[in-house]
Amino acid sequence: MTTGNPVKILLIEDNPDHAALVIKGLRSNNVANSLVHLEDGESALDYVLQRGRYADPSTSPRPDLILLDLRLPRVDGLEVLRILKSNEDTMRIPVVVLTTSDAELDVAKAYDYHANSYMVKPVSFEHFMELMKTLGCYWVVFNKCAE
Amino acid sequence: MTTGNPVKILLIEDNPDHAALVIKGLRSNNVANSLVHLEDGESALDYVLQRGRYADPSTSPRPDLILLDLRLPRVDGLEVLRILKSNEDTMRIPVVVLTTSDAELDVAKAYDYHANSYMVKPVSFEHFMELMKTLGCYWVVFNKCAE
Repeated sequence: MTTGNPVKILLIEDNPDHAALVIKGLRSNNVANSLVHLEDGESALDYVLQRGRYADPSTSPRPDLILLDLRLPRVDGLEVLRILKSNEDTMRIPVVVLTTSDAELDVAKAYDYHANSYMVKPVSFEHFMELMKTLGCYWVVFNKCAE
Repeated sequence: MTTGNPVKILLIEDNPDHAALVIKGLRSNNVANSLVHLEDGESALDYVLQRGRYADPSTSPRPDLILLDLRLPRVDGLEVLRILKSNEDTMRIPVVVLTTSDAELDVAKAYDYHANSYMVKPVSFEHFMELMKTLGCYWVVFNKCAE
């Protein structure tokens, strides 16, 4: 189930407190041995689509898993999702939406744009850590990504 | 995170031993309080699309989560996936592929057809139970489905 290769996670999150919680939660379960954190939608698109300063695949390899906040500066998270899931080179990368929004319109749009999963950030620290443990175990240990 | 409403799981699996393992794994973690098991792709399509003997939504409610084997009688699992994910009424239902195949072509096709996740069935009983625990917790407790 584990491949030996670290699963490359891209976290797209503009709130530094939430980013710190995600990273802490993944690291404490040893499932964040390769994590890149970007804070806005435009940088995230450049990174995943390997454009501009992220054009070199040896220093900016495509992620195996994307954790995506929805409310993001420059390009909104739903638009990032739509673009990545319409591109043949990136559509197979699992995208987990991780957001404070439980608005039904956001949930429906995210699934319409082929989000692989939608998670509402828990309010309590304890539940946030539980979520990151389960999420990390699910996607890093058990899920099989396309090569 | 838990809604109080049981998450309705549809298991599409023709191998009775594998079905028993999935059901045992989910039940032992209390995440299979509403589970329907069907053994071929045609029945599964009829059930989810509410056709024929499954036309009554009060007795055949749409599932919240689908666990889908790939090698199925009558209609193949990949075709079931393609049809459900191209239909506006069913495209938002998370589909987790659960198969013995780790063939790259199956994995790629599954993601091309918008499978939410791809899991290779573990060989050992212990790992199978671990997978079902994580899978159940992830989709039933944490993931937010569209309404």
